Parts: sequence; structure tokens; C-alpha cells
Amino acid sequence: MKHIAFDGRLVVIGFGSIGQGVMPLILRHIDIDPTRITIITADERGHDVANEYELRFINQALTQEDYRPRLSAMLGKGDFLLNLSVDVSSVALVGLCRELGVLYLDTCIEPWPGGYTDPSLSPSHRTNYALRETMMRQRCDGPASTALITHGANPGLVSHFVKQALLNVAADTGVTEAIPADRAGWAALAQRLGVKVIHVAERDTQVADRPKERGEFVNTWSIDGFVGEGCQPVELGWGSHEKALPADGRRHDFGCDSAIYLMRPGASQQVRTWTPTEGPFHGFLITHSEAISISDYLTVREGDTVTYRPTCHYAYHPCDDAVKSVHELAGKEWVQQPRQRLMMSEITGGIDELGVLLAGHAKGAYWYGSQLSVGEARSLAPHNNATSLQVTVAVLAGMVWVMENPQRGIVEPDEIDFRRILEICRPYLGPVVGAYTDWTPLDGRGTLFPEDIDTSDPWQFRNIRVL
Amino acid sequence: MKHIAFDGRLVVIGFGSIGQGVMPLILRHIDIDPTRITIITADERGHDVANEYELRFINQALTQEDYRPRLSAMLGKGDFLLNLSVDVSSVALVGLCRELGVLYLDTCIEPWPGGYTDPSLSPSHRTNYALRETMMRQRCDGPASTALITHGANPGLVSHFVKQALLNVAADTGVTEAIPADRAGWAALAQRLGVKVIHVAERDTQVADRPKERGEFVNTWSIDGFVGEGCQPVELGWGSHEKALPADGRRHDFGCDSAIYLMRPGASQQVRTWTPTEGPFHGFLITHSEAISISDYLTVREGDTVTYRPTCHYAYHPCDDAVKSVHELAGKEWVQQPRQRLMMSEITGGIDELGVLLAGHAKGAYWYGSQLSVGEARSLAPHNNATSLQVTVAVLAGMVWVMENPQRGIVEPDEIDFRRILEICRPYLGPVVGAYTDWTPLDGRGTLFPEDIDTSDPWQFRNIRVL
Ligand SMILES: NC(=O)c1ccc[n+]([C@@H]2O[C@H](COP(=O)([O-])OP(=O)(O)OC[C@H]3O[C@@H](n4cnc5c(N)ncnc54)[C@H](O)[C@@H]3O)[C@@H](O)[C@H]2O)c1
Ligand SMILES: NC(=O)c1ccc[n+]([C@@H]2O[C@H](COP(=O)([O-])OP(=O)(O)OC[C@H]3O[C@@H](n4cnc5c(N)ncnc54)[C@H](O)[C@@H]3O)[C@@H](O)[C@H]2O)c1
Repeated sequence: MKHIAFDGRLVVIGFGSIGQGVMPLILRHIDIDPTRITIITADERGHDVANEYELRFINQALTQEDYRPRLSAMLGKGDFLLNLSVDVSSVALVGLCRELGVLYLDTCIEPWPGGYTDPSLSPSHRTNYALRETMMRQRCDGPASTALITHGANPGLVSHFVKQALLNVAADTGVTEAIPADRAGWAALAQRLGVKVIHVAERDTQVADRPKERGEFVNTWSIDGFVGEGCQPVELGWGSHEKALPADGRRHDFGCDSAIYLMRPGASQQVRTWTPTEGPFHGFLITHSEAISISDYLTVREGDTVTYRPTCHYAYHPCDDAVKSVHELAGKEWVQQPRQRLMMSEITGGIDELGVLLAGHAKGAYWYGSQLSVGEARSLAPHNNATSLQVTVAVLAGMVWVMENPQRGIVEPDEIDFRRILEICRPYLGPVVGAYTDWTPLDGRGTLFPEDIDTSDPWQFRNIRVL
Repeated sequence: MKHIAFDGRLVVIGFGSIGQGVMPLILRHIDIDPTRITIITADERGHDVANEYELRFINQALTQEDYRPRLSAMLGKGDFLLNLSVDVSSVALVGLCRELGVLYLDTCIEPWPGGYTDPSLSPSHRTNYALRETMMRQRCDGPASTALITHGANPGLVSHFVKQALLNVAADTGVTEAIPADRAGWAALAQRLGVKVIHVAERDTQVADRPKERGEFVNTWSIDGFVGEGCQPVELGWGSHEKALPADGRRHDFGCDSAIYLMRPGASQQVRTWTPTEGPFHGFLITHSEAISISDYLTVREGDTVTYRPTCHYAYHPCDDAVKSVHELAGKEWVQQPRQRLMMSEITGGIDELGVLLAGHAKGAYWYGSQLSVGEARSLAPHNNATSLQVTVAVLAGMVWVMENPQRGIVEPDEIDFRRILEICRPYLGPVVGAYTDWTPLDGRGTLFPEDIDTSDPWQFRNIRVL
């Protein structure tokens, strides 16, 4: 089923797990002439896939020096730039697309190489908060070609899960209201429900029968992407119910102030969370754009005073081999392993359980999301595993929305029509379930050793953080 | 080659990885009649191995109520009790052996079930320090049948590695002294060399092509043993060079005072260490008897004042599947997984690199130990992997020493003839190597984020601890 026809040119930057995985979906659901598609990438990965679909494949990395002339020669008004790369500045690309009148989508606000770990930048300036603020400063009044930023699974799809989850909790707790029509309406609903905490709670159980080797980072999606964000500071949207800033917590001295950061790499910080299949577990508090955008979107202000905001962050249990890879990386004091392996065909089983956990409301905590198995993912689309398909279908849905809404300027996932996106994604997400739990991060605590916990409010970050 | 003949009875308690693995070595190197051997165990594991060697196999757990009558009926003066179980009190067994005149060896001071995690005991009384003090209070003057306690690989063999390593560093730094004849001599040598830190630094790289399942704890040796000690408090021999007790560090109010403990489970605390093959890595600071006994043994006192003691602790990187298992266990707030798998025949490769790292002397740091591969282990003895063979050959050597020295009462590894033990073990340890390194725990630190480090002395525990 074609969702839309597109007769412009499409340039795809990056052809790793997401680029390769999205291509069958684009060709299946967007009516586009493959000869109008060009891939620009920095290695040979996926050349076979490009050949399979008879797509132009240019293995020559874009650089800060050449991206303008090279892309300007390939793209004009009404064309589409799909950025699925690492190491190419999203801010630079969005600026160029604005000038050229080109539609744009990415799944992450990437800096130029080294931006995540440049020790000459202060930690504050190595955050996603800073990247997002830089992007937002490019917003302008009046119509401009649409640039939908950070629209993968997370960031991306999870913002739409949050809205559906808010509606479900409202219905289940007898709060009957019309579907909010704007940002203020969603924020008011979250406040009224008493949501204190939103985790993007993910447990990837995919495994292979090929064990991780020493010196090898193994993951189910971009290793460079994961290591990059894992070395950025911990970041979290900082809720209005939090009683005290952590000792190593810092506020930024610029921007919307929805988030704080901690003075340590995200891959070194674990947090307690919960998903339906796994139950309670420890995930990594990796910085992600959605932690900042969702908490910003759901902020309620009276005048200059924030009267409501949820704490919002990622709580990521990557596949087991990635847990081992992170342990090895930490042991080398964050010097990346010499080799990497993006698990794809060797995966023998497992699911990616990816959703949002809304907690603090009348029914405790509620998880809403996708439980996609690798087997189902493979049966739904070639060149995907469970992790990539959750991303690639969100990329597809975002592209369709951009094509349907071509003059909206820079937009974040939170700002677009969640029903349209969920409608397109749904057939590719496996079981999409909602589940309540009475689990709290106080469960099982302080039994063997006294712990620094706040028993008066389970949903304080102090209780969630693993120390 | 038979090291000794033994015509008494031998009762083996526990027939897991160590019990099964030591049996071919006992039968190969001790001249003993297999009909004189009885195994008492609490499950069916190893029944096939017992049958292979035609040994009596009693699957009926010993309890606090029945151990005295049952063992008294099987053991008399000059017989041997080899305790390779979990959940049977070593202190109780040693007491009984003393009464009966029975020789004794174990590889760990085990309490009765639940002793490691009884929340009604204070953390101080759940330590190996407390177990060791209780054992030591059973020491008496005058001859008594020998009970060699904690004589596996570590605790056990590593105490002998420490002595050999001290001699090697002495020779390589031009400190020429006779081989010390007693405790005071060894302590004086360690002090003279300036050894500040002794890690038992272990990296187990054994892997299988069968991935760990959810809810399954996978390890290369006792899962119950590892989980038990992993839930005990962090413990470390506390060196005289340490400038400040950690905020969560506590001293005991009884005993020799060689060690401190931290108010958290060992499996939740990582430390920086180094082995030749792996280089720098993070290991778990699991409590072990050797941390306490080695630091006690090497203490120099002037009157009541401690003038020298090294910091000494375990720094354990178990096999990768065990790292994942620990992560899962922590995520369940230390409630043990429902299933366990002791990896043996499915192992496809890897080594157990187990040795001691002596640091702070004139040549920086020196690792001395065994690098045994699973392939070599299998070629040397059936029913073993690389981890178990390092233990079982130390058990064999300890048994031989006990038989050769039957009237020494309760003794620790540090107190017996290291050359005799190393001589017996050597053929089973694979490459035994010594390696210097200029690595320190300050390497690569503080690059991305400021860290709480002491640059004036790399070997402060503050630098070694992962926070
Ligand atoms: N929002 C989400 O849910 C989500 C999920 C997964 C990945 N992502 C993001 O998507 C992006 C791609 O992920 P992936 O798993 O496909 O990564 P990958 O590592 O598999 O592939 C990265 C691709 O970028 C290309 N590339 C690198 N430098 C380049 C340059 N200078 N010019 C052109 N191409 C270059 C590489 O050659 C490769 O094809 C990353 O930014 C990642 O963070 C987002
Ligand atoms: N010092 C070292 O280097 C070292 C190394 C490995 C293991 N160990 C110790 O050796 C011991 C055995 O290790 P493993 O790997 O063989 O363990 P395992 O878990 O494989 O086996 C434990 C055995 O104890 C038996 N057992 C349990 N409860 C019992 C009871 N009440 N009565 C009789 N038997 C009982 C079980 O049936 C099993 O046979 C553990 O205490 C472990 O900590 C020491």
C-alpha cells in the first residue's frame, strides 16, 4: 500500500543499519522512482543492498568543507534529504535544506566528527541539550520547508507513545477529556494525571550464537552512534517534583532549562526501570533528545514559574552483547574498541521491547510500547532486525508526514500528528501493548545494606539512580 | 606420577565443578584406593563422573543437625575430609575434624545456608573477615590434625604467587636478600620493596556459542558460590599508605583489623586493574579470604602500631556471560536468577588469566600468574575448564602438603611452603608468566569529565575504585 507519491529526488546520507533497513519500506510505501534516489555514505556497507534495489551508491564521506557544493548539486526545491548518518552535522544540513527549499528528516541531531567527545568543549556544550538549542535557534517565523528532526524510534516514535499512553491512563483512571489539541493541552493532561516520571524503557533481548570477541563492540544498531551518545554527559528532563538536584547535577546557563546533566558519561550511569516482559531491570541513562523535548513539551508554566514538568529520560538495556561491550569500553576508560559488529543475520532470537513508562499517576506506573521480535521483524521487512525496524518504520512515517506537510519549518516529534504516525507504524511494531505495574524503584531496596532512599516519594530520581 | 600414598578414607563433600575436576587429579597423583572414597553431595550433578571412577556417591545434603553423626560414622583418626561444597559450615567441619583427628582441606570458609545474606546479621558479621576470625578462634596451641583452609586458586594458590612475585621483583630491582624464612621476613621484604597494592587480578575470557538466557546465571565455576560472595560486603585488606577511609568504609570492632569493608555488595563495586593479555580493565571487588589473610600476613608492626601493610583485594573480571549475569542480578536487586548454568563442555575458547598484581615498587606494577587456556586445561585433565583446573590442582597440592604435614592444626595458605605447592601445581597452570607494566589507575582519567583522583599517589584506593 502506497501512502503517498513523491516525484522529487531523494538523497540518503548514511547507509548503515537504518539506511539499509528503511529502503524496502520506502520503496514499498512511497511511490517513488528508484532512479531518483542517491545514497551518500562513508563505507562499503550496504552496497549489495543498494545494488539489489538499483540505487546510486556513492561511497565518499561528506565533510564540513564539501557538503554544501556536493549536496547543492544534487538537491533543489521540493527534493528530500534523508539523513541517516553519523558524523555529519544535522544543524548544517538543516540550514542548507532551508536555503534550498529541500525537505529533511533525521533520527538524531549529530555533530561533526568528535563533537560528542571534544574535551575542549565544556560538558554543557557536549550535551544533546546544547545541540537541540542550536537547532532551535534556526527556527524562523513564517513558512519554510519542513525539517522533521530526531524522528526515529527514540527519539521519535516514543513521543507519540507518550501521547497515546496519556490518553490510555486518562481513560483508565476516569479522567475524561477531549484529546488535547495543542502543547498546552497535553501538558495540562500530564499534570492532571499526576505523571511524575517518564522513562523511555527499553529491553533488547536479541542474541546471537556468535560470542562477542575481546576488542569488539557488538550492538543491534549503530556502534558509533551508541558509543558517541554513551560518552556524552548523562542528561535528563528534570521534573518539578524532584526535591534536590543531584550533587553532580548541573543546569545549563542557556536555553529552555527543561533538562539537567550529570558530570559523567551516560554509559557509566544506570537507572532502575521496568518493562512488561523483563520486569524490573537496570538500564543505562544514555542521553537522548526525547528526554529534553518531551519534558519541555509537557512543561506547565504560570508566568515564568514552572508549575509542572515530568522527569524524563532514557533507561536502556541494550542487547546482552552490548552490555558486555559497554563494560569493556568503561574498562578502557572510554577508548572505543578497535572492532565493531552490528548484529543482523547472525541473530538467533529475542525481542526489542521499547516503550514509555509513565509513573506517579493514580494507577502507579504504566508502560506502553512495542514488543517486536526479530522473527516477526524479518517476516515484515528484509534487511532489518527488531531494533532497526522500530526505527525505520518511524522514519518512513515521518517522511510521509513531511511530504504531506511540506511547509512547517523545523519540527520535533512532539509537535506533529501522533495518530497519523502511529497509524503508519502500527503494522510493523509487533504487539503494541499497555501494561500497569505496582513496581516502584523502592522494591527490594535496603534489605542487605542501608541505602540512600526517599521512602516518601518512590518517583524521586534519587530512588531511580543506581549508585 | 604419585606424589604420596594415602591409606586412610577420603570423604569429599560437594561434587560440583571443583569436586568433579579434582577427582582425576587425586586418582592420578595420590596413591589411594578408590573404594575408600565417598562423595556426599546435594544434587545429582557429577553422578556420572563418580560412576566413571567407581566412587560411592551419596546424594543427601549435610545439615547443621545431621553432619556430626553422619560424618563421625565415616571418618576416624588419620582419614581425610575434603570440603568442596557450598552451604556447609567450614567452621563446624573443622571443629569436628579436630575432635576426630581427621585431616581437612577446603577452598572457602563457607557458612551454613543464608549466612552470606542474613539481614538479621550486621554487615560486619556477614564478611569473610568475620568468618575468618571465627575460624581462627578455633586455633589452639600444641599439635592438632592439620586443617588447611581456603586452599583453592584464590584464595590459595595466589598467596604462593605473591611470594614468588616478591622474590622476582626483589631480584629485578636489585634487592638481594635470602628467601624469607617466616612471616616477619616476608612482610619486611614487601615493605622494603615498597609494595603498596596487591590485586588478585583475574580476567576469564572463556566463551561458549550458547548465549546466556534471561533468568539464567552463567559462570565457569559455582554460581551459588559466586552469588553468595558477590552479595557479601566489599572487603579489602587496608594498606598503611591509604590516606583516607572511604565514606562508606567501615572497620570491624573485633579481630586483627587488617581489612575494612564497604557498605555495599561486592558485585556492585568495580575496580581498575591490569593483566598482561587484557591490559587495563574493570573487575568486581568481590570479597575473598585472601584479601584479608595476605594483608594480615604482610603487616609490619612496631609495638601496637602498624608501620606497613599493603592494600589487598580481588579484582575479578569473570567470563563475559557472568558479567551479564551480574548485571541482571543487580537489576533484580540481588534476588538470584531462577536458573543457573555452569559452563563446561560448551566452552569454545578462552583463557583464565589469574595472578597477582604487585604495585607501588620501583618498577611500577608487576603481574605474576597463570594464563591457562580451556584447550590446554582439557588436554591436561578431564572434567575441567580453565577456571576449575587452577583450583583443582591447588586442591591436590594442598592435600599432598596436608598429608606430608599432618599435625599442624589450622593453617592458611600464606603459612605453608610455597615452593612445594608451586612445584606440584606448575604442570597444570599453562604459561606462568611475570610481566611489568607502567600502567596506573590514573591512565586515561579525567579527560571527558573531572574526576575525584589523587595524582600525587596513583596507588590510592580512591584512584582504583570505579565510581
Ligand atoms: N532515533 C532512533 O531511534 C535511532 C535509532 C538508531 C539509530 N539512530 C541514528 O541513526 C543514525 C544511523 O544509525 P545506523 O544504525 O544506521 O548507523 P551505522 O553506524 O550502521 O551507519 C552509519 C552510516 O553513516 C555513514 N557515515 C559516516 N560518516 C559519514 C559521512 N561523513 N558522510 C556520509 N556518511 C557517513 C556510514 O558510512 C554508515 O553508512 C545514527 O545517527 C544513529 O544515532 C537513531
Ligand atoms: N578458592 C578457590 O579458588 C575456589 C574456586 C572455585 C570454587 N571455590 C569454592 O569451592 C566450593 C565448590 O565450588 P564448585 O564450583 O564446585 O561449586 P558447585 O556449585 O559447582 O558445587 C557445589 C556442590 O556443593 C554441594 N552441596 C550444596 N549443599 C550441600 C550440602 N548441604 N551438603 C553437601 N553438599 C552440598 C552441591 O550439591 C554441589 O555438588 C565453593 O565453596 C566455592 O566457593 C573456591
